Amino acid sequence: MAGRALNDLQVKSVTHEFYMARALHLARQAYYTTRPNPRVGCVLVKDGQVIGEGAHQRAGEPHAEVHALRAAAGRAQGATAYVTLEPCSHFGRTPPCADALIQAGIAHLVVAMQDPNPLVAGQGLARIAAAGIQVTSGILEDEARELNQGFVHRMQTGQPWVIAKQAMSLDGRTAMASGESQWITGPEARSDVQRLRAESCAVITGVSSLLADQSRLTVREGPWLAQTGFMQPTRIILDSSLRTPTDAALFQDAAPVMLVACAQAAQRHPERVEALVGAGAEVVLQPRRCDERIDLHALLNQLGQRQMNQVMIEAGAALSGAFLQAGLIQQLYLYMAPQFLGDAARGLLSLPGVVQLQQAAQVRVQDVRAVGRDWRFTLLCEHQNR
Amino acid sequence: MAGRALNDLQVKSVTHEFYMARALHLARQAYYTTRPNPRVGCVLVKDGQVIGEGAHQRAGEPHAEVHALRAAAGRAQGATAYVTLEPCSHFGRTPPCADALIQAGIAHLVVAMQDPNPLVAGQGLARIAAAGIQVTSGILEDEARELNQGFVHRMQTGQPWVIAKQAMSLDGRTAMASGESQWITGPEARSDVQRLRAESCAVITGVSSLLADQSRLTVREGPWLAQTGFMQPTRIILDSSLRTPTDAALFQDAAPVMLVACAQAAQRHPERVEALVGAGAEVVLQPRRCDERIDLHALLNQLGQRQMNQVMIEAGAALSGAFLQAGLIQQLYLYMAPQFLGDAARGLLSLPGVVQLQQAAQVRVQDVRAVGRDWRFTLLCEHQNR
Repeated sequence: MAGRALNDLQVKSVTHEFYMARALHLARQAYYTTRPNPRVGCVLVKDGQVIGEGAHQRAGEPHAEVHALRAAAGRAQGATAYVTLEPCSHFGRTPPCADALIQAGIAHLVVAMQDPNPLVAGQGLARIAAAGIQVTSGILEDEARELNQGFVHRMQTGQPWVIAKQAMSLDGRTAMASGESQWITGPEARSDVQRLRAESCAVITGVSSLLADQSRLTVREGPWLAQTGFMQPTRIILDSSLRTPTDAALFQDAAPVMLVACAQAAQRHPERVEALVGAGAEVVLQPRRCDERIDLHALLNQLGQRQMNQVMIEAGAALSGAFLQAGLIQQLYLYMAPQFLGDAARGLLSLPGVVQLQQAAQVRVQDVRAVGRDWRFTLLCEHQNR
Repeated sequence: MAGRALNDLQVKSVTHEFYMARALHLARQAYYTTRPNPRVGCVLVKDGQVIGEGAHQRAGEPHAEVHALRAAAGRAQGATAYVTLEPCSHFGRTPPCADALIQAGIAHLVVAMQDPNPLVAGQGLARIAAAGIQVTSGILEDEARELNQGFVHRMQTGQPWVIAKQAMSLDGRTAMASGESQWITGPEARSDVQRLRAESCAVITGVSSLLADQSRLTVREGPWLAQTGFMQPTRIILDSSLRTPTDAALFQDAAPVMLVACAQAAQRHPERVEALVGAGAEVVLQPRRCDERIDLHALLNQLGQRQMNQVMIEAGAALSGAFLQAGLIQQLYLYMAPQFLGDAARGLLSLPGVVQLQQAAQVRVQDVRAVGRDWRFTLLCEHQNR
């Protein structure tokens, strides 16, 4: 290609990507505040000039398209609109953006991706095309999907995108035999975990880890804390037999606590339910076969119904292993500290039933990088057997 | 510095580095064949022209300087000689190179590093300087030291540079509980291990690993196999009570086998010693307190006396852990396969006595890279307590 001029089609494509990149950039400004809504940006371009742009900031507030149209202040006639997500065509908390774009008289709509909800995908685009507006789709689609990984996954499966975080020594140990584990990784890795919590709607742990580590599971540092609309993740404790004490450290924070327990345990110990509710927890009871263990699949369906886009598991070997074996983890963040703790220390994952190499849980390495003195592996969990 | 011309001193330094890089390149050509000697390259430059160059190829054959002087064919009068290591000043299997350079009439000697043997360091340079030749030292010294890491370490400590290799899953497991471990890592990682064996003078393992894996521990692939002077590493089996069977797989290969056992065991079972010697093994006996375990420090002293520059440990959790805890591993190559085997599988390292986090074995990450579908960590082991 060296020395050759781009042809018309290539120029058009580069132009589309240029403005879509700007729209994605705007959407990312509100990364930590739009939930449960998707992050969306919009840029209006006319005669090679940006005449208006905006991003959705918080649920209940105007969508990106509305911000951009307001900024264009009536000049949108004949413009091209770049939107990172197909404009909505239904009445939610705000009127449909598809109608707003039609009424504004835009000539061309360029979107990065269709609505991920298979029941409505393409309806907004069809409505706009029916109004005689040119429609182009799929510009920077991968980037747009990644931006709303959790939302897209929830729309497609009804469950949140599940990430898990574990910190270990290079020999795969998370704590000494005594339970001593603070801190294996360094301050930079712990800051990185704060970021993962900040982008998650909930942090899930087991009651044993909670009791052992006196975890609070809140977001305590980072620029997102100062952003209007930032919400602390819900702390979800899987506690089938209601062992959580009412003086647990996490009750000291205002962020919500959800306790998932068995209906049987609640029947046997109604006073515990009452005390925990009094301490500020929402107690959610699971009905069936729960004395053995919480039904993780059912739990994720519930969290999906609560419009949680992404949840994060910060748990010990047993619960993390159970989620993994159930095929319910999409992405695992593994922080490795440059040290060895030896065979007597605690292991990373319990995987009962894995006794042959061919039964090993396979993962795909998405990213490896240094985080301070530690190394972070981002793993995509493959769920062939789902 | 942009836009500025280099001053004379800078030009001289860049020139020195240019030719020294060439000399290092020549030395690397014989990377796998010089042992127990160091890898050395030499370039002779006169009036901006290379008039001769060469590298040491194999022990007993001419040193790099001699090759270069022969190539210069009498034209070395007034030349600058670039050598990656201080020229020898003693009679070994060949006459001293310092004398050869003086006799050839060179005007300037540039070396990357002094002789690493503290007892002779600088003597060759002093002899050459006394003959009125200008001497410059320290050009690309780090690269030169790395090229002869094993040799330098042996000269300074009397022991070989010790590398260890382990292959594991991401959760630090080397085999299933049953012992099944072939193969956790992929073919590219196994090829990389072939390279590590090829650059090592010996491969050390324990008799338990040998019996479990039917290991042969030879170099079976790679370009070095075809190089004149390439030698298979000695297979060293730590077998205190002489359990190695004479039909073990490693006796099928011609490469040397050294069995390290306890004198007491040999006294009790002279017939086993006889059978193993008959099968082709050299049996080395350790005298003291050996019934418990082989004295690893004494072993490495012995291997140093045998002029081994680098040895490689390919062993299980117990022996690898013992070497690490004794502070006897310099570099650990950890290959990680993108899978999880779970808590019931075998661990990486036994580190008896490590019960608190502050006792963890600290390492320094030197390099992290993908090797096929696996990831390799190169770790420098820190030995504060040595």
